[in-house]
Amino acid sequence: MSQAIAPDSQLGEALAQIAFEVDNAFDALLPVPDDARARLFEAMRYAAMGGGKRLRPLLVAAVAEMYGVQREAAIRAGIALESIHVYSLIHDDLPCMDDDALRHGKPTVHLAFDEATAVLAGDSLHDFAFEILSDPATSADPFTRIELVRTLALASGAQGMAGGQMMDLVAESTEFDLHTVTRLQQLKTGALLGAAVELGAVLGRVAPEGRAHLRSYARDIGLAFQIADDLIDHEGDAHVAGKAVGKDAEAGKATFVSLMGAERAREQARMLVEQAIGHLAQHGGEADLLRSLARFIVERDR
Amino acid sequence: MSQAIAPDSQLGEALAQIAFEVDNAFDALLPVPDDARARLFEAMRYAAMGGGKRLRPLLVAAVAEMYGVQREAAIRAGIALESIHVYSLIHDDLPCMDDDALRHGKPTVHLAFDEATAVLAGDSLHDFAFEILSDPATSADPFTRIELVRTLALASGAQGMAGGQMMDLVAESTEFDLHTVTRLQQLKTGALLGAAVELGAVLGRVAPEGRAHLRSYARDIGLAFQIADDLIDHEGDAHVAGKAVGKDAEAGKATFVSLMGAERAREQARMLVEQAIGHLAQHGGEADLLRSLARFIVERDR
Repeated sequence: MSQAIAPDSQLGEALAQIAFEVDNAFDALLPVPDDARARLFEAMRYAAMGGGKRLRPLLVAAVAEMYGVQREAAIRAGIALESIHVYSLIHDDLPCMDDDALRHGKPTVHLAFDEATAVLAGDSLHDFAFEILSDPATSADPFTRIELVRTLALASGAQGMAGGQMMDLVAESTEFDLHTVTRLQQLKTGALLGAAVELGAVLGRVAPEGRAHLRSYARDIGLAFQIADDLIDHEGDAHVAGKAVGKDAEAGKATFVSLMGAERAREQARMLVEQAIGHLAQHGGEADLLRSLARFIVERDR
Repeated sequence: MSQAIAPDSQLGEALAQIAFEVDNAFDALLPVPDDARARLFEAMRYAAMGGGKRLRPLLVAAVAEMYGVQREAAIRAGIALESIHVYSLIHDDLPCMDDDALRHGKPTVHLAFDEATAVLAGDSLHDFAFEILSDPATSADPFTRIELVRTLALASGAQGMAGGQMMDLVAESTEFDLHTVTRLQQLKTGALLGAAVELGAVLGRVAPEGRAHLRSYARDIGLAFQIADDLIDHEGDAHVAGKAVGKDAEAGKATFVSLMGAERAREQARMLVEQAIGHLAQHGGEADLLRSLARFIVERDR
């Protein structure tokens, strides 16, 4: 698991391409103003650009492409979602939260800038997501735009990611069982991954009932992703992970690995990936990227 | 200025009514779940309910009523806006920001709960605003909903309130002139007050060109509001203000009072109120509440 596995060439190209497009979009959409707000925009750009695998935007784009959506719209929805992910990392890294010094191999925002700027940069990226989604440039259709907004707001807030983060805080002082850890991770990590496939499907005007298999796919890769993360935290080294490792065990938090053991957790992740791929049975070659992505998630080096 | 002035009876009733409706709406829309997220929702409710004059929801409702909007829609838009205001206060009160112990006369969220919960409660109220606005219960018309979302996202983020908060941080180490302090306050306080009248007008399906006078009204009362705040900070006592006072002077920050002197600042606030009321000349008695509200803003006890 701590060995870097080269993604297959279609996925490798797609990862490189999305990383390039996401950075370009943030660069174009977050110009630094020539006034006292400059430091805020610099912090937003520092956090948003040049780091991360961009798995969430890639998921948005992969699903959008299956349904013939224009690339620009998919990239815009992708960076909106990525903005939420990045804001949550900035706040999560704060001293009062996980107190992390390293993120994507560089100093966290509150260390590179300061804590107050980190709070505001997170808050501003949070709004930026909804600015982007509500902009007619994302979709000319107001119904599509409002569906995008609603999907992201529900995935991000107390019913989704933030609720999962709260459970994660409580986990430090409470012994969670496997059921509760699963629920925690379905919210903390799963909600945004689920939103990724939903955003792609909303852009593709897939009716809600036609999205069920994509949601199932996302739910399975979301859990597989978290199990893989726990295994990296359990086994990995900080250099490969690009962030501190071993922190969950240190904090006494129940994880998939502590509850199931590393061997069973690894098997479970592989099983979830096969199950995720099974949900795509109705699709042909157009879903190959989603299939590769599912495999990559448990085999990634970080 | 530090004397409590009784609002006129129409305004007094409107303030009492909106405070009641806002608390009821938060209570109904933020039930505490029976799981490990309970503490998060308790913190959101603690911050959102039972405090503040609810001036922003009242502005939304007053404008909405001028254009015959259903009360329920106005209240929903009002609590969305108030959620943004409340989230910004939670984060602003954090030790790494203003480090305040008291808000609306009770301990701030990070003291009543803890810092991590305060960060997440702020983040969750931030999303809650967009959840509420994007919900069909706010308006059956997707175009109206997306306009509400876009108005709020732009007013809240780096282009608006959060940008103003960043300028406010910079103000601690830089000598701002009157022009820059005005710009700072137009963003920090003015953006959400401007959004309040915009939300009411969007619900009333007033075309953008028909909202210009309302925006002018909001801009003037926003500045008057901030000057009044500076005067309270300069002269007031913490008991009346419900929060710590004298902090700006202590931090060496330029304020309207430090730059203009208390007497000229007081005159300027009165002038702005008259100007704000002037922008409502095209309206008859239906704008009386907005007129009273403008006067109240410089005469309020806190």
